[in-house]
Amino acid sequence: MLGPRLDVPYNKKRFLEVFPVVVEGLLDTLRAEAMPDDIVEWYRRSLEYNLPGGKLNRGISVVDTAEVLRGKLLEGDEYQKAAILGWSVELLQACFLVADDMMDASITRRGQPVAALYQLLKRHFRKESYYTDLLELFLDTTHKTEIGQLIDLVSAPEDRVDLSKFSLERHRLTIMYKTAYYSFYLPVALGMHFHGISNPEQFALAQKILIPLGEYFQVQDDYLDCFAPPEKLGKIGTDILDNKNSWVVNVALQHVTPSQRKILDENYGRKDSECERRVKEVFVAVGVEAKYKAFEQAAYEKIVGLVETVPAEGSELKREVFMAFLRKIFGRTM
Amino acid sequence: MLGPRLDVPYNKKRFLEVFPVVVEGLLDTLRAEAMPDDIVEWYRRSLEYNLPGGKLNRGISVVDTAEVLRGKLLEGDEYQKAAILGWSVELLQACFLVADDMMDASITRRGQPVAALYQLLKRHFRKESYYTDLLELFLDTTHKTEIGQLIDLVSAPEDRVDLSKFSLERHRLTIMYKTAYYSFYLPVALGMHFHGISNPEQFALAQKILIPLGEYFQVQDDYLDCFAPPEKLGKIGTDILDNKNSWVVNVALQHVTPSQRKILDENYGRKDSECERRVKEVFVAVGVEAKYKAFEQAAYEKIVGLVETVPAEGSELKREVFMAFLRKIFGRTM
Repeated sequence: MLGPRLDVPYNKKRFLEVFPVVVEGLLDTLRAEAMPDDIVEWYRRSLEYNLPGGKLNRGISVVDTAEVLRGKLLEGDEYQKAAILGWSVELLQACFLVADDMMDASITRRGQPVAALYQLLKRHFRKESYYTDLLELFLDTTHKTEIGQLIDLVSAPEDRVDLSKFSLERHRLTIMYKTAYYSFYLPVALGMHFHGISNPEQFALAQKILIPLGEYFQVQDDYLDCFAPPEKLGKIGTDILDNKNSWVVNVALQHVTPSQRKILDENYGRKDSECERRVKEVFVAVGVEAKYKAFEQAAYEKIVGLVETVPAEGSELKREVFMAFLRKIFGRTM
Repeated sequence: MLGPRLDVPYNKKRFLEVFPVVVEGLLDTLRAEAMPDDIVEWYRRSLEYNLPGGKLNRGISVVDTAEVLRGKLLEGDEYQKAAILGWSVELLQACFLVADDMMDASITRRGQPVAALYQLLKRHFRKESYYTDLLELFLDTTHKTEIGQLIDLVSAPEDRVDLSKFSLERHRLTIMYKTAYYSFYLPVALGMHFHGISNPEQFALAQKILIPLGEYFQVQDDYLDCFAPPEKLGKIGTDILDNKNSWVVNVALQHVTPSQRKILDENYGRKDSECERRVKEVFVAVGVEAKYKAFEQAAYEKIVGLVETVPAEGSELKREVFMAFLRKIFGRTM
């Protein structure tokens, strides 16, 4: 295998070690403007509360990509710099998560990480030839993700159940915009910029592979929410209760009889576990599990086919960048 | 007087004529990504609902600045381009207004204009030598405004009245970050970039003048909210009821006797018109009006002094850029 082995606990540990550099850099920016101490402290607590708790997969993928392209582990300042790009993705993610949490109207919590992200880029990448590309990449990704949230909101308002607004095509568009760009294309594109790749065709090729990969990831997520046992999932799935525009309900809608459709109309998106049980019965009856297995197989083959359009030798981009993702995702159960 | 006369109704009319270009450009971006029609229509309605209704002072100031620097009216494509920069400021403003409206948790309404703003800049300014400067200027301004909202939130939470958290110094910091940068410095800096100014010293000088100007503007706003008759103000002021960290209460706090302080503690920020009346009595008793007149006089002299540090002849920057603002603001009663 090309490149270093991707050791998850080790990668996470060294990534977390860079977090204090991120925080201190951002606080220095505030101190340089003579902000009062209580504001600086509030900012610190907010960063420490919102950022380091998650899996950090997106941020770590930036470093992974850079190391695969380099063909060796990064060290010292070079590692730190790649990791700071990774933390920028985590800042963006924090901002989307706050946005998603409609119950919490604290706009400041949302605005703050995204403003911080650009201060971080300015501080560490201002002098790089690819600085403007970084700004545009983050801004374009934000735009795409906002569009995804908009499509989702228009298609599946949480407070009104109307399954006639759902469709597999609409679902594909939603997850492509809402998840795939920022979770899959963004980290790899950042790793590519960091490595010095500038040819737009290489970025277009990466996007062509990573968007279907992100779509598959989200479909898997939807499927597991409904069918994985809670002890494997690590939480209790609530997509049915929450009227989520999930892949599962969309597939079911394509295959239901009129009487099954009536059951879905009357029970989907109700905050009631008996309703949820009836919906799941319909899902099982129409054979969602077999359809998922078929989808998974087709997705895997399609993505491997796309990865093989990357030349095996002599290309700036490397197949292993994508294969590493593929192994992680097709192996996961949560 | 140098430069064209600034005719408000004419300036607003031609500025509004560019709005369809802004909207169509943004919708084209969506259509280019094959967005479904209902999403494109939602986006159009959202832009048309959120943007053209206000006074548009900030946006028009970009064009004003460019015309004063040019020494003549802009026409045709050149006017359109300057006006598009102006509309970018209005997009940013729309996003801050939605953020401010804490009752409306619709994040998508907020995220969307700010994402649109960068798509607009990309579409129309990607090839300009100052494109990266524009991105940084908008991003830095957003960061400063978010910091201002944070200071405001920490100092004056709407749901808890604690006048001991207020101070004139904290108030000055809040309005400088929350209002002055985006409302005063940003439009002029955009006009300067558009005109081709690139020397950072010129931008630093503009900022040095415009931040105090913006501070004065906000103090005036606070004063009028409390003391202007509603028919002049065009609305009913609610700063006292809303526990706002206003210049007026801060000045009063500096001059109250212990018994007047007790009245403020017990009546400020209560949603009750009798409480509001008692607070206003204290404001009048401590002589807020005379203190405001003195503040206004001192602010005017300070700002004119700063404007006179711009060379009268042979400078890229022109005094008239600032004098036009000064006349507009010191003349207004609302």
